[in-house]
Parts: sequence; C-alpha cells; structure tokens
Amino acid sequence: MEFTVRQIAQMLNGKVVGDDTALIRSAAKIEEGQPGCISFLANPKYEPYIYSTRSTAVIVDKSFEPRQEVASALIYVDNAYLSFTVLLEEYQKLTAQGKRGIEQPSHIGEGSTMGNNGYRGAFSYIGSHCTIGNNVKIYPNTYIGDQVSIGDNSVIHPGVRIYARTVIGRNCTIFANTVIGSDGFGFAPQPDGSYKTIPQLGNVVLEDDVSIGANATIDCATMGSTIIRQGAKLDNLVQIAHNVEVGKNTVIAAQTGVSGSTKIGDQCVIAGQVGIAGHLTLANRTKIGAQSGLGKSIKAEGLSLSGSPAYDLNLHLRSLASLKRLPEMEKRLLELERSHQHSEK
Amino acid sequence: MEFTVRQIAQMLNGKVVGDDTALIRSAAKIEEGQPGCISFLANPKYEPYIYSTRSTAVIVDKSFEPRQEVASALIYVDNAYLSFTVLLEEYQKLTAQGKRGIEQPSHIGEGSTMGNNGYRGAFSYIGSHCTIGNNVKIYPNTYIGDQVSIGDNSVIHPGVRIYARTVIGRNCTIFANTVIGSDGFGFAPQPDGSYKTIPQLGNVVLEDDVSIGANATIDCATMGSTIIRQGAKLDNLVQIAHNVEVGKNTVIAAQTGVSGSTKIGDQCVIAGQVGIAGHLTLANRTKIGAQSGLGKSIKAEGLSLSGSPAYDLNLHLRSLASLKRLPEMEKRLLELERSHQHSEK
Amino acid sequence: MEFTVRQIAQMLNGKVVGDDTALIRSAAKIEEGQPGCISFLANPKYEPYIYSTRSTAVIVDKSFEPRQEVASALIYVDNAYLSFTVLLEEYQKLTAQGKRGIEQPSHIGEGSTMGNNGYRGAFSYIGSHCTIGNNVKIYPNTYIGDQVSIGDNSVIHPGVRIYARTVIGRNCTIFANTVIGSDGFGFAPQPDGSYKTIPQLGNVVLEDDVSIGANATIDCATMGSTIIRQGAKLDNLVQIAHNVEVGKNTVIAAQTGVSGSTKIGDQCVIAGQVGIAGHLTLANRTKIGAQSGLGKSIKAEGLSLSGSPAYDLNLHLRSLASLKRLPEMEKRLLELERSHQHSEK
Repeated sequence: MEFTVRQIAQMLNGKVVGDDTALIRSAAKIEEGQPGCISFLANPKYEPYIYSTRSTAVIVDKSFEPRQEVASALIYVDNAYLSFTVLLEEYQKLTAQGKRGIEQPSHIGEGSTMGNNGYRGAFSYIGSHCTIGNNVKIYPNTYIGDQVSIGDNSVIHPGVRIYARTVIGRNCTIFANTVIGSDGFGFAPQPDGSYKTIPQLGNVVLEDDVSIGANATIDCATMGSTIIRQGAKLDNLVQIAHNVEVGKNTVIAAQTGVSGSTKIGDQCVIAGQVGIAGHLTLANRTKIGAQSGLGKSIKAEGLSLSGSPAYDLNLHLRSLASLKRLPEMEKRLLELERSHQHSEK
Repeated sequence: MEFTVRQIAQMLNGKVVGDDTALIRSAAKIEEGQPGCISFLANPKYEPYIYSTRSTAVIVDKSFEPRQEVASALIYVDNAYLSFTVLLEEYQKLTAQGKRGIEQPSHIGEGSTMGNNGYRGAFSYIGSHCTIGNNVKIYPNTYIGDQVSIGDNSVIHPGVRIYARTVIGRNCTIFANTVIGSDGFGFAPQPDGSYKTIPQLGNVVLEDDVSIGANATIDCATMGSTIIRQGAKLDNLVQIAHNVEVGKNTVIAAQTGVSGSTKIGDQCVIAGQVGIAGHLTLANRTKIGAQSGLGKSIKAEGLSLSGSPAYDLNLHLRSLASLKRLPEMEKRLLELERSHQHSEK
Repeated sequence: MEFTVRQIAQMLNGKVVGDDTALIRSAAKIEEGQPGCISFLANPKYEPYIYSTRSTAVIVDKSFEPRQEVASALIYVDNAYLSFTVLLEEYQKLTAQGKRGIEQPSHIGEGSTMGNNGYRGAFSYIGSHCTIGNNVKIYPNTYIGDQVSIGDNSVIHPGVRIYARTVIGRNCTIFANTVIGSDGFGFAPQPDGSYKTIPQLGNVVLEDDVSIGANATIDCATMGSTIIRQGAKLDNLVQIAHNVEVGKNTVIAAQTGVSGSTKIGDQCVIAGQVGIAGHLTLANRTKIGAQSGLGKSIKAEGLSLSGSPAYDLNLHLRSLASLKRLPEMEKRLLELERSHQHSEK
C-alpha cells in the first residue's frame, strides 16, 4: 500500500514542508529510516538523526525548528508521537482488513453460525453448534470444538486450538498455536501408585478485549469456568491452570505459570517467568517481579513483590545485595569468633 | 445430553427425595449451581450452600439430615463424593464417545492401518506404514509421521505433531499442539565458531497410560529412545530433552524442563518450572519443589528437595527464612565488630 | 533402508573382519545394540560392551585389538567416532530426502513462487507473494503468511506458523509448532486502566544456518526487525521478544526468554530457563548458567554469569555455598552477641 506525503499529512491534520508528492510505503525508526519510509521525532535526544535519516518523511512537533538542513519532507503536527501512533493504527487496520470470505477446504459442523464480514481460512475446523459473531477472523489451520462462542471482531490466529464450550468475548485476539480449554492437570493417586484422571468438565471464558500471545495454554475448569476478565493481556508461553481467574486489565508477561484455582485481582502486573502457587488470592494492582515464585495470598492492594518465595520488593533487593557479600560475612564472623575466644582467655 | 434425576439415582444406586422427573444437563459446584445442574455435598463445611443452591439436584451422604428446607432434589447414596466422581466419569465417557469415523479431507499414507471404532478428523495427516490400534481418536489438524505406532484407546488431540518412528502405548492422551519426537538439541562446535548438527536418529517411546499436556515438547533420542514409562503424567509446556527417561507413575507439573540423558525414577513428583540438568539419575519417589534447579543425582529414595541448586527441603526453607534477615544480620555483624574492636583497645 | 556391512565399509573406507553380507537397518549405542544395528567403539571405557553387544556390526579404530571373541562384524577405520558420525549424516540425508513434490489439498496464494526439488505437504498454507527457494521442505499443516521469503534448503516442520513478511535464510530448520513473527507484547496504559494495543509493524529475520526448536516463539519487531543472526541455534520453548537480536553462532537452551530490544552478542552460550531483561546489550562469548536472571548489560567479552540476578559465576557459587550455612551462621552470630554482651559486663 502506498500513500503520498500529502495524503498522510491530510489524515493527521498536518502541514508539509518539503516534497509532498513523495511516496511512503513503510514506517521505520528515525535512526533506521530508508527511502519510502516515514518516521517521527518526539524525543529531543533523537534530534541529531533527523539530519542524517534516509526516511522520505518525518512527523515532527509544531514547535520543531531545524538547526541544519533536513533532506526528508517534514509533517508538522500538534503531537508527533501521538500522530505517528494514529498513523500506525490506521495502517494496520487497512492491511488487516484484507482477509475476508471463506477459503476451501474448510470444515464447519452442523448448527454452527458465523456473522457478517468474517474470514475462515483454509484447513480451519469449526465444530458443531458454534456461535461466531460479526467481523471474526479465523485463520487457516485452526481448530474450534463444539458449542464454542466467539464475539464480534475477535481474531483467531493460525493453529489456535479452542476446546468445546469455550466462550470468547468481543475484540479478543488469540495468537498462533495457543491452546484454550484443554484438560486441567488433575489426577487422583490410587493405592497401587498409579493415577486416575479426574474428569475436567468445566470450560474457559475469555471476556471482551482479552489478548493471548502465541503458544500459551489456558486449561478448562474441573467444574465451572477458568476466567480471563475484560482487557487482560497475556504474553507468549503463559500457562493458566484450571479454575484460575485473571482480573480485569491484568497483564502477564511471557513464560509465567499460574497454578490451579488461584484468583488474580484487577490491574495486576506480573512479569515474565513468574510462578504462582495454587488456591491463592492476589489483591488488585499487585506487581510481581520477573522469575518470582509466589506462595502466599496477597491481601493488601498495590504491593510490589519479588523473589522466590516472593516478598516485599525492597527487602528482597536488600537481601540479594547482602547475599553477594555473604562469603565475606562468613569470614568476618569466623574472624570475630576467633578473636573473641582469644580475648576471653 | 439430558437425564432425569431418577435415571441418575438408578445409575448410582441412590434414593431420591424430591422431584425425580427434573432434568439434569450439567454438573456444578454446590455454591455455583444453576437450574439443570447436579452438585454434591460431602464436606460438612459446605452444608450451608445446600439451603441456597440453585442446582436442580444434590447428591448427599445417606447420613445427611437437612436442618432447613432444601429446594433441590436430593439423591441419597453411600458416599456422595465417590458417586459424584463416578457420575462425571460416566458423563465424560458418553460425551467423548461421540467422535467416530473419518472426516474428509484427511491424509493417510500407504501401508498405514487403523483399528476399529476410531476417529480421524479433517485435515489430519498420517504418514506411511503407521500402525494404529482400536478406538483411537485422531483429532483434526494433527500430524503423524511415518512408521508411528499408537496403541488401543489412545487420543491424539488437535494440532499434535508426532515425528516418524514414535511408539505410543495404549490409553495414552496427548493434548493439543504437543510435539513428540522432534530433534534433540545437539550441535558440535567447529573450529570456525559455527555449530554442526549432530544427527538425532532415535525415537520417543510412550508406554501405556501416559498423559501429556498441551504445548509440551519431547525430543527424540540421539540414538535409542527417549522413554516415558507407564502411567507418567506430564503437564502443559513441559520440555523433555533427548534420551531422557521418565519413570513409572511419575508426575511432572507445567513448564518444567529435563535436560538430556537424565533418568527420573518411578513415582516421583516434580512441581512446576523446575529445571533438571543433564546426565543425572533421580531415585524413585523423589519430590522436587516448584522452580527448583537440580544439578546432582539423587541416590536415596523418597527425598524432598527444593531450591536452585536444589537440596534438602527443610534446610532450604531455613536458609530462605534466614535470607530475609540477612541485611539485618549484616548490620549486627558490623556492630559486633566495632564493639569488639572497641573492647580490644 | 538396508545396507550390507560391506556397503557401509566401502562408504567409510574401512576393512571388515566378520560377516560382510549381514544387513544393517539401524544404529544403536554399543550397550543397547540389537541384531540389524551398527554401533561404534571409540572410548576404551566401553570396550567390555563389544564382547556382549547384540549389534550386527561395530565400527572400531584401526588400532583396536580384541581381547576376547567378538560376535559382531568389525569395521576397522582411522577414527571410529568420526566415521560413525559421517555414517549417521549420510543416513539422515538419505531418509530426509524422501519427501518431494506437492501433496493435495494444499494452498498457495497468488504471486507465490517455489524453487526446484521442494516439498509441500498436505494442508500446508502459503499466502500471497511469497518467494521460496530450491530444495525447501514445507511439511503438512504449516502456515506461511503473505510476502514471506525462505532461502534454499530450509526445512519448515509440521505446524510451524510464519507470519507475513518474515525473512528466512538458507539452510534454516524450524521445528514443529514454532511461531515466528506474531505480535510483540506492547500495550499502552490508558487513563481508565485499560490497555491499548501498540501496532507491531516490523518483521522477523532469520539469517542462514539458523535452527529453532519446537514450540518456540519469536515475536516481530514493533518497527524494523527482530533478528536471529547466522548459525544461531535456539532450543524448544524459547521466547524471543520484539526487536531482540541474537548474535552469530549463539546457542540458547530450552525455555529461556529474552525480553524486548535486547541485543545478544556472537558466540554466546545461554543455558535453559534463563530470563534476560529488556533493552540490554550482551558482549560476545557471554555464558549464562541455567535459571539465571540477567538484569544488566554485559560489556566485557567472555564472562560467565549465574544467579538471579546474575553476576560472576564463581562469586555466585560461593554465595550459594554460604547460603546453605546461613541458618548456622545466624546462630553463631547470636551466640557471639550474647557472649560479647556478657564479657562487656
């Protein structure tokens, strides 16, 4: 897709200085710009790059006054960063809207319905009695079990597996190869040492505006539902066990795992590679540092925790600093003991 | 699927008090019950819920005597919890048995055979010279390489990838998007700093009754076999490297990784996010706590370990408790040194 | 595939003692040999096995002199280990080259081209305007988005998902169910507590000779490219965030995660389950121990680090050793304080 500098300036209510007929095909950071790219300058720290960038056009703040000659066309706007973001969003909408219609072969079971303006890619499999809203995109090679419902505008990327009876809200995005609704890990030990599978009969509910990264796993509940609340964002390779609840607008970074029946509050921020034990409750706005292991419920809101097991972030940082000096402390302690024994004599 | 309360009571050898013509369509926890659901009451702690639940029927112990009016139909049995479990299992069998036959398009290579009563979903790919037993379910979008054998009653969920020459026993379940038998991570450093791939020619063997979660990876052996012994249960996102052996009835929780050539004994319990180094031997009944890192072989049976590196659980817990007090200890040590110097003068 | 012992000896320029008409169908470790297998003996420690192995043939060094009777045919060569490796490579080439041609149904979009001698498996999906080189194998059930380019001799295993505009070099291997180019994890917090998706418009570039394990995830850049340099090897379940660069011949073991915009140097060795924070720079030849957490840039080349947070390996090992003795130290400190107070009086 190509636009002239002038077309872009009109979209952003901006004013062009330079060649407004030049063609823009892509976006780039100002320091990595190439002919055909558009960049932006917001942070004054990056100003030197505007005099050397190869980008065809740069979006700048109204107040920007070049101190040297600039080769690129400049688009003056109220807020360069904001305008650039708007531009990227518009661009993404235009490119993403390309996919429409039904590719064959694809499978849709009896009693399943799909709304308007949707996309169903080749080799996608939709089971029976599914209800799929408007503007839903189901990419190739996906599997959707029986009785699944998917709300308007949601996007199911290639290779996603959605087990039967999963409920997905509106405006959700699930990235490639993520598995939603497979069995929780539940086994009852038998007298002979073997394990018997505990039937997992519940489902998974994703509320509206949820985003799940690639290769993640969200298990169905034993009974009832594993729930990801509105606006929660989960990164790649995250594991959510059976009967977990993830609160509204909570963010969970890559490779973190949450054990069974734990309830995470709203607006929490959980970093990468964190482990959270089962049957805990985390208050709203809890923050947990990377690689931490949480073994206790958190009752007060807004705490920052770190470590494995996790406790107060600042205390943990002090302990870690002391840990580095521990071999030295051990020597000092020994020294003191000897000296003390000596002085006792 | 619908049953009357009377049908369920007959199945469980129970006695109904209340409306035995009411219809049951689903199961729920007593505190989350809805009309059409059946629940159970086993733990007296939950008794208050039986007076408020909206479940249509509740399974209760023979000895239960309501202290208030109960709206739900009651099914009296010898052991409410056990009966409920039996019911869930029966229900799951009934619903799971729905899938039968061959959906098209699907691919099966020359010389491959499949037993009776099986299911092969659309877009599933079976290579050449595979031997697949009776009652095997192969869900849509799966890939099974050449010369794979799969025993009776095993279930291969959507998106599973099984590489050539893998051997899968009877009654195994492999959840969605798990990869069995891809190359072990083996590279020989070359003088110029590059790495040469070491051919991985072995395979993976899953004995009977093995369960593997979603998005897990089990690498083939360099030579010989990576082996998962009878009854072992592996959770989502677990990584098993080349030539590993996982013992009989050993349980491994989510996101744990086992490095190459390590042999894990029988009846071990390994928690989530554990890392186990390569070429180790773990005795039977070893227990390893979450996020631990095991760097040494464990010879005595039945030990509990924790920490990274992992050592005795109790000792590790004491060290962690001390670690919290470490900054304080450091101050005390300094104080003591000063005081001691002073007293020396 | 079957070969006589004589055929193998000819391939390796070796000399046979024993039955050179016997048939070889597989390779095995000498201690696990079966009839029809070929093994090798290089390490004298394994010599006892040559007198009991059931392998049909064993490759031995020219200098080997049996001290007892050997049942297997022996193939004498200059270097037994090297010859065995050559044999495995030849075998793998022969078996791997089996796949050729186009299986149906498969999908290829308009304007996409594929070179000679390639393989496109059933249910594979190739988007529009892709450029795919010679000898490329695209296994069943894969998804390749629009405008992807793949260099000669690369192999895309079953279930791999490659997003639009990804660039893959020559001789690359991507194992099953890995996802390349899905969105980076970028969300801008809004005043109402919700998050707005930041468009991720960049791509992923894999240079030549790159290998990526199974179920790994490599996110596209926000703008520009996430880059995996020539010869880098990534293991299963590795997470590479947006705008990361992984240097030439760098090796990353399973379940490690690298956060956004971090640049890892050449020839680094990163063990399993490591976490690396965002926006860091790691010098060439950095080595990081398993389960470490790196929070700072590393400027000097060739350092070995360990711990979470990671610091000098040796210092970290000493701290860990002291940590085990910490509860004991705490007692000694208390003892000393009491004794000191007493002596003060």
